[in-house]
Amino acid sequence: MAELRIDPARDVDWDELWPIWHAIVAAGDTYTYDPATTKDGARRQWLGDASAEVWLARLDGSAVGMYKIAPNQAGPGGHVVNGSYMVSSTARGKGVGRAMVEHSLGRAAELGYRGMQFNAVAATNVHAIGLYERLGFRTIGVVPHGFHHPEQGFVDLLIMYRAL
Amino acid sequence: MAELRIDPARDVDWDELWPIWHAIVAAGDTYTYDPATTKDGARRQWLGDASAEVWLARLDGSAVGMYKIAPNQAGPGGHVVNGSYMVSSTARGKGVGRAMVEHSLGRAAELGYRGMQFNAVAATNVHAIGLYERLGFRTIGVVPHGFHHPEQGFVDLLIMYRAL
Repeated sequence: MAELRIDPARDVDWDELWPIWHAIVAAGDTYTYDPATTKDGARRQWLGDASAEVWLARLDGSAVGMYKIAPNQAGPGGHVVNGSYMVSSTARGKGVGRAMVEHSLGRAAELGYRGMQFNAVAATNVHAIGLYERLGFRTIGVVPHGFHHPEQGFVDLLIMYRAL
Repeated sequence: MAELRIDPARDVDWDELWPIWHAIVAAGDTYTYDPATTKDGARRQWLGDASAEVWLARLDGSAVGMYKIAPNQAGPGGHVVNGSYMVSSTARGKGVGRAMVEHSLGRAAELGYRGMQFNAVAATNVHAIGLYERLGFRTIGVVPHGFHHPEQGFVDLLIMYRAL
């Protein structure tokens, strides 16, 4: 039985996390980051965001994923948290994504957030949408043609939410 | 007949713009900025955002408003622009907001954006919502209790969109 651990990510972990981050973002089919983002630029956006917490998932000691939670808006919108999750292609189908989302929901509740929101889920990302729905999220909005998919062209971008 | 001009905002304009920005954000009833944002922090978020354009409205020579447009997401979401508008309380009801939204729609279209999105319109901000609807925006999503209003408590946060 493989052992999955989820621990706070530190700057020294970025060498292990960057290949996962880069492979997902460079593919351009799920996340609204610039596919040309550099290693240091990505590190700044994740580990250098003072308002965020980043956690790292290890399976039998190897980094297989990461997630970030941070306020989705500031000030009077700061009670809703945003979540972002990345799983290595080598570790798909092993429950890593589900474990990270569940962990993040618990952590966000501990931090006092009242809801979790995803701003930009490509409608083509059906596996992620299915997971989010099984974990209690629902689609609260649709940006028509809000995502430019590298093969499918303009597809809708979903906004999803779950109360905490 | 008062003359309204809308010109690009420069760093030297911030002394005039900051009182407008600050009064609106400190009230805490419309925008999801931290009400305690400093003059320099606000300047960095508006004039220091390299991906943004900021425009300044003057009525008979006096600064009465400003707007900012910037990509709402990066990478595969970068074709949808976000817009933010602020009008001085001394200049309400004079068409400044409408003129700025119309100007921003034209400017965003010139820049090649395909849609404009607002992420966080407090449901209590009925004058802004009415203006946006008259200019072709519709509500594409609702974050339940996404905004903490200083008098009304938790109210919904609307996500609005218009194709360009």
